[in-house]
Amino acid sequence: MSTTDQRFGLARTITLPGPLRLDGGGLLSPVDIAYETYGTLNAEGSNAVLVCHALTGDQHVASDHPITGKPGWWARMVGPGKPVDPERHFIVCANVLGSCMGSSGPASLNPATGAPWAMAFPVITIRDMVRAQAMLLDHLGVGVLHAVVGGSMGGMQALSWPATFPERVRAAVVIASTARHTAQNIAFHEVGRQAVMADPKWRGGDYYGGGQGVNGQNGGDPPAAGLAVARMAAHITYLSEAGLTEKFGRRLQARPDRPDGAKSFGFDADFQIESYLRHQGIAFVDRFDANSYLYITRAMDYFDLAEEHGGHLANAFRASKARFCLVSFDTDWLYPTPESRAIVHALNAAGAPVSFVELSSPFGHDAFLLESPEMNRVVDGFLRVGA
Amino acid sequence: MSTTDQRFGLARTITLPGPLRLDGGGLLSPVDIAYETYGTLNAEGSNAVLVCHALTGDQHVASDHPITGKPGWWARMVGPGKPVDPERHFIVCANVLGSCMGSSGPASLNPATGAPWAMAFPVITIRDMVRAQAMLLDHLGVGVLHAVVGGSMGGMQALSWPATFPERVRAAVVIASTARHTAQNIAFHEVGRQAVMADPKWRGGDYYGGGQGVNGQNGGDPPAAGLAVARMAAHITYLSEAGLTEKFGRRLQARPDRPDGAKSFGFDADFQIESYLRHQGIAFVDRFDANSYLYITRAMDYFDLAEEHGGHLANAFRASKARFCLVSFDTDWLYPTPESRAIVHALNAAGAPVSFVELSSPFGHDAFLLESPEMNRVVDGFLRVGA
Repeated sequence: MSTTDQRFGLARTITLPGPLRLDGGGLLSPVDIAYETYGTLNAEGSNAVLVCHALTGDQHVASDHPITGKPGWWARMVGPGKPVDPERHFIVCANVLGSCMGSSGPASLNPATGAPWAMAFPVITIRDMVRAQAMLLDHLGVGVLHAVVGGSMGGMQALSWPATFPERVRAAVVIASTARHTAQNIAFHEVGRQAVMADPKWRGGDYYGGGQGVNGQNGGDPPAAGLAVARMAAHITYLSEAGLTEKFGRRLQARPDRPDGAKSFGFDADFQIESYLRHQGIAFVDRFDANSYLYITRAMDYFDLAEEHGGHLANAFRASKARFCLVSFDTDWLYPTPESRAIVHALNAAGAPVSFVELSSPFGHDAFLLESPEMNRVVDGFLRVGA
Repeated sequence: MSTTDQRFGLARTITLPGPLRLDGGGLLSPVDIAYETYGTLNAEGSNAVLVCHALTGDQHVASDHPITGKPGWWARMVGPGKPVDPERHFIVCANVLGSCMGSSGPASLNPATGAPWAMAFPVITIRDMVRAQAMLLDHLGVGVLHAVVGGSMGGMQALSWPATFPERVRAAVVIASTARHTAQNIAFHEVGRQAVMADPKWRGGDYYGGGQGVNGQNGGDPPAAGLAVARMAAHITYLSEAGLTEKFGRRLQARPDRPDGAKSFGFDADFQIESYLRHQGIAFVDRFDANSYLYITRAMDYFDLAEEHGGHLANAFRASKARFCLVSFDTDWLYPTPESRAIVHALNAAGAPVSFVELSSPFGHDAFLLESPEMNRVVDGFLRVGA
């Protein structure tokens, strides 16, 4: 492994030993988990950092994506000289259960039928994802995590880790996240699910054709139009109103016949924001499985850490031995700062050490994925304590 | 006419004399306008109030809807003893051009073909709607309006009126509205349009079957699934996050087999917010034409009153002789208070008399349609000046 090589990660897939017991009551087997590691576990086994990805993310956190060739989705946070550093940390990032980048999900083969699970795949929860990650860490010989780090849905996992495995986490970094989905969060996801399910090509989930739907390379005829609409709606929630205004405003799209842009008085993408959104929708269907989108949004909507602990969020952390670092962004209206504050209050009530900062950014929820020297400084400082 | 009768309005349709010249460059003919009036024009012709409806509204502002039997959509504002009062005012409310409640729109018959216009209907603007209203007022013998009143898209018309016909408006009431659509506003509408157009039943707009699509009674096979998704997405923007939390929170939907509600670990509408949104989507397709939805959202996205006046909003009002009353709601994130403030600043710059108030409400954008004694007091006081 060379840390100067952009593709310094080791990407692998394991099949977990034994079935996974799910919050929904069933057992899932087999469970494949695709993951990537960076760096080396030290002799004490004390330098492992688990990085958790968001709704549509993958295991390639810091190395080029093997298919698209794009840089890792969080190379700003994870990599040589970054807060999560393969020179110092043994870094693990796994594709979440239910996804479509190599871990078991609705596009995987159901051993009982030899065909993709589709909607016969069991509904999973954030905690189920975390349990699968714990089994992966067992396999890798990681007992206790130096830290678990995540943003957005990754932050939900980072919160769920110390609540589910209080003995196995020394620190949790939770960025631009929440301890439960609000009615508005659920509403946006429901619009997306309905858009997918309204597409006649969805066919009750049975659109895979011959093969598995991993990375969209399924050879079937997926509900691309519905998934694109779902992605467009979701994408609006990732950006701030001010950021959209700054980036696009009411500027018109240039065209060959109208270099300066002009209203078409038709239904073309006249405005740059329309063109951008359409592109976001279309690009997404090439890389993501529609059924996985249903399952993972469902897991996020079901997430309510307080409800899992008798209705009191503080109870989730009473057994925890972890330190916590919370970061929110002032223009994030998907998981706005009060959601982080509520977690901080619960951690205080549970007597858990916690630091919290709200950062300023024009970029809304997406800010956690973008260049943010302050975020990096906060996370770096936090992770170096007790390292 | 009896003002104690809930159905005291007179609903009629006229065909405007001569073609309507459109902002898009073409001429539209014939132009039917369906409207309802309440009260009587006084001898001086000085008591006319034009009420303008929002995106999916209709002319039945204060009387029961002839098909659904539901009360007028703004009976809280318009009616005996209300701020707009048929005892004192001659009230006119017209279905906007491009809609589907009797005024000409894509579901109307194209005289050139004898079939519905569908997407051959010209793209229209808010100003085109206003020009059609002016021709209706000519027909009704109304020269100068005592006031034009509207909320949301109705407020855009109320702003456009004094800008387009400065001699014909003495007062304008603009509630929960804006002088231009932002990138985020356009983005949400574009999601809705893409949802409609992604539905294979949309068929490029030619889904009407035999008859016209007025009120959805078209006998065709409309893109109901896509339109329902569009409505769901839009509906979220009409409500505040706090209002959604108060009304629904994470409460689960009761079912025959689960009276207290429980997670299904499936894709049923487990949460009340899901069930509510699905209902909103389904109910909407029964009453609204999908193509009209495309055309009216397009008109709103094109709306930029400053752009129509050399890039300076104040210029729009320099010839105006009207007084203005602006009302915003603190939890309205579709057209938030700063949008109203921008209008107030432009009116100040133009030397136009303006009063402005931000009201507090938990209900977001929808607040303007709901019970609001303060809003009524403000509008009532404003309309009585100079009456």
